[in-house]
Amino acid sequence: MSGPKGFANGDELIAELAAIVGAGNCLSSQSDTAPYASDGRGLFTGSVAAVVKPATTAEVSAVVSACAHAGCGVVPHGGNTGLCGGTAPGPDGRDVVVSLERMNKVRLVDPANDTMTVDAGMILQNVQAAAAEADRYFPLSLNAEGSCQIGGNIATNAGGNAVLRYGNTRELILGIEAVLPDGSVFSDLRGLRKNNSGYDLKQLFIGSEGTLGIVTGATLRLFPARRQIETALLALASLDDVIALYLDAREHAQEFLTAFELTPRIGLTMAMQHVPGVADPFAEPHPYYVLLELSSSQTRVGLGDLLVDLLERNLEAGRIADGVVAGSLGDAQDFWRIREGCVEAQRIAGPSYKHDVSVPISAIPGFIESTKVTLELAYPSAAVVAFGHVGDGNIHFNVCAADMDRAEFAAAQHAIEEIVFDAVMARGGSFSAEHGIGLLKRDVLLRYTTPVGIDLMRAIKLAVDPAGSLNPGKVLHAPPAVPERQMEHATQ
Amino acid sequence: MSGPKGFANGDELIAELAAIVGAGNCLSSQSDTAPYASDGRGLFTGSVAAVVKPATTAEVSAVVSACAHAGCGVVPHGGNTGLCGGTAPGPDGRDVVVSLERMNKVRLVDPANDTMTVDAGMILQNVQAAAAEADRYFPLSLNAEGSCQIGGNIATNAGGNAVLRYGNTRELILGIEAVLPDGSVFSDLRGLRKNNSGYDLKQLFIGSEGTLGIVTGATLRLFPARRQIETALLALASLDDVIALYLDAREHAQEFLTAFELTPRIGLTMAMQHVPGVADPFAEPHPYYVLLELSSSQTRVGLGDLLVDLLERNLEAGRIADGVVAGSLGDAQDFWRIREGCVEAQRIAGPSYKHDVSVPISAIPGFIESTKVTLELAYPSAAVVAFGHVGDGNIHFNVCAADMDRAEFAAAQHAIEEIVFDAVMARGGSFSAEHGIGLLKRDVLLRYTTPVGIDLMRAIKLAVDPAGSLNPGKVLHAPPAVPERQMEHATQ
Repeated sequence: MSGPKGFANGDELIAELAAIVGAGNCLSSQSDTAPYASDGRGLFTGSVAAVVKPATTAEVSAVVSACAHAGCGVVPHGGNTGLCGGTAPGPDGRDVVVSLERMNKVRLVDPANDTMTVDAGMILQNVQAAAAEADRYFPLSLNAEGSCQIGGNIATNAGGNAVLRYGNTRELILGIEAVLPDGSVFSDLRGLRKNNSGYDLKQLFIGSEGTLGIVTGATLRLFPARRQIETALLALASLDDVIALYLDAREHAQEFLTAFELTPRIGLTMAMQHVPGVADPFAEPHPYYVLLELSSSQTRVGLGDLLVDLLERNLEAGRIADGVVAGSLGDAQDFWRIREGCVEAQRIAGPSYKHDVSVPISAIPGFIESTKVTLELAYPSAAVVAFGHVGDGNIHFNVCAADMDRAEFAAAQHAIEEIVFDAVMARGGSFSAEHGIGLLKRDVLLRYTTPVGIDLMRAIKLAVDPAGSLNPGKVLHAPPAVPERQMEHATQ
Repeated sequence: MSGPKGFANGDELIAELAAIVGAGNCLSSQSDTAPYASDGRGLFTGSVAAVVKPATTAEVSAVVSACAHAGCGVVPHGGNTGLCGGTAPGPDGRDVVVSLERMNKVRLVDPANDTMTVDAGMILQNVQAAAAEADRYFPLSLNAEGSCQIGGNIATNAGGNAVLRYGNTRELILGIEAVLPDGSVFSDLRGLRKNNSGYDLKQLFIGSEGTLGIVTGATLRLFPARRQIETALLALASLDDVIALYLDAREHAQEFLTAFELTPRIGLTMAMQHVPGVADPFAEPHPYYVLLELSSSQTRVGLGDLLVDLLERNLEAGRIADGVVAGSLGDAQDFWRIREGCVEAQRIAGPSYKHDVSVPISAIPGFIESTKVTLELAYPSAAVVAFGHVGDGNIHFNVCAADMDRAEFAAAQHAIEEIVFDAVMARGGSFSAEHGIGLLKRDVLLRYTTPVGIDLMRAIKLAVDPAGSLNPGKVLHAPPAVPERQMEHATQ
């Protein structure tokens, strides 16, 4: 089924890869490889020489080494749930996809050290479950947790719902094992909280989207299991109130504050319209809703009292218009269903442009309000849905087509993006808070990054991956010289 | 007073530097530059071409650019409090010291965003004070805080006393401004908690000891001010009890646990002998003492009750032999004086070898006990003082000469170091937890790091600083080719 694709010696390479991982784990027919030829959203479709599924780090190393000698590109795949096309192979059939799906085991749990070492291909939900089994808590949590892999979370420095208290994926990683572009293995899986012995090399691999190394294993920080969770859904009149409430909660309950999620009225109404089981718990409509969660591993201090205290104080201060406290796990799930339903409803409702941005917390109200006004003036039939992780300064500023003519909406993509991103950058924000760059945002990266920054990124890429063979063209456009380099490398 | 030193055009360069920073801020006589010619501990003394004190980032940029053209090395100086010789200039008079001491201002405080942007030359204590003035808390705290500078803390990824709860310096940095080896300025001072727009370049400069860039400014994470602090000093019978107590405190009070510091009996007796004001609060001697601190920004939940609860439970479980709770700030200071007196006493008592190591928390008792036995068998007249940050796995494993013959002790340095570091590395630890590498530990770095790791560090250094001009020879030995490169660069 295999055949010479975009480069010489394709058959030889495929035979070599099959010998490394076993014939059943080396796919080369078009029907077998098709599911790996696109990124998860289907934004980019390429063509692959082969898909290999190594079972060990040694196999990943041998695969990458073989690809380096053959001069082909290597595209790492985790759960393929990224939103920016970071897993799409190139168009010329020269790329080999390396899927980590078979590397899915826990290697070591050290409860006293609060660490766990895992294969990179473990699905995030299974990582969470393995921590829970040891009476520990691994806090990384996001919508795709049932299918995304921890290696992909690391490669993209995933954010999610618990960043407010526990940080991004970067803060949760103590050790990394990664295969470098030449097939050599960098391994430092020590579970140390303090280590200043030379450059902190693991930082290179976190958030670089598989362009500097393929993460094959990691040592994760764990935390005590949560034994108390209090959840409230609050209705507020303005974004200024939202921020004032956040500041009060931070001041008086920071240790326990694990979620502070914003949904606007339009997000709730869309969720009620499109997602079964979503209901408005309030008698009257309100402009904004905040899901606030407090949690703790200890049971000596009752969080219920603390929450009541917090709500009473903010009701009196006029910051909260109304509120409901979850009396059961079911209530809490209902509150979360509103937040998640807001995302799901947009998918169902029609086309939309997603902007995953961050600004300083102090700039959130001004950013959302003024950008909304600008967009509504320019595109009165479109609808802005701005929601997200207020405590992280991370707003998902989505623009839905709504009643706007679909062709006009399609034509307006770039102009809309420019309005949003310019507003973000003018406030010292980021045009990509948690989704990364992939293929989708390379030009935006170029536009909003200083030449010094871009030059540094290019210098790092060239230093670690001189042939440009690892996840080619992701984050940074591949330099024109790369194909020649690859060929030189191939003939060595 | 200036003259040609180790390289051609020395006079020209000095005139150029004086024109940039003002003659009064460009020192070149030997008497003026002498204080800058050694690292803070006086372990390494070199010779400098000049010492310059720029007042702005633009001046640092111009200075570094002039040095790059002249082909000389540039050695950044903060408070010069490092312990590994990272600030010592080279021996040949070709290095220019760039002292950040005049860049000592707060640039911006954003209380709602919980961030503060500062010049790199601000003394840490002044950073803490500026945060406190805004009713905020900047948690980085270490012995040298009265003279070390925040830029040096960043360059060395300083640890200190609050890592357990707030992380190392790396976790406290949201933005960085740095001057690169060619004089260009990398600037990203955005105070964002989520930002995945390309490689996270600030990570390059944190902990790389001034070898990749000179940090000139930073945006720091702040926290709510602490409004409750509870401190206890506990006496314990064994290291297993120390770890068991730590695990209990982590499980039942993690949100508030800000210090868990170990001092052995010998540390207390040495402190009582050498440091005025240190007293043993217990009626009988105990093998180990733990300083435990809980703190919080909120006042709704009383930490006093939580502490009593914790102590009662652990007394009943037999993990604590005795304990005292601070009834006043003065009491708490007395407890801290024991911990700090243990360090001071060693300085006064005579020569000692310091090993700043970390191991997984689960490995602490085995590491300390077995290494102590090995050393006491080999050197029965020496004394081991192992103390430190248990919750970070960070032990200061010091070996004091005590009654050992001074010449024999001097001759045994390498053998002692090897015993300690081999024991650390065999347990998956680090030979440098918070002090870094500088000049002092370069060979140790080579010994205990894989060739893949060393090659990656060298590739990064070469990519960012191809001429090898920034803090030459620190962390990594300068490659033999560097002088030639520098000269090539100089004639461009």
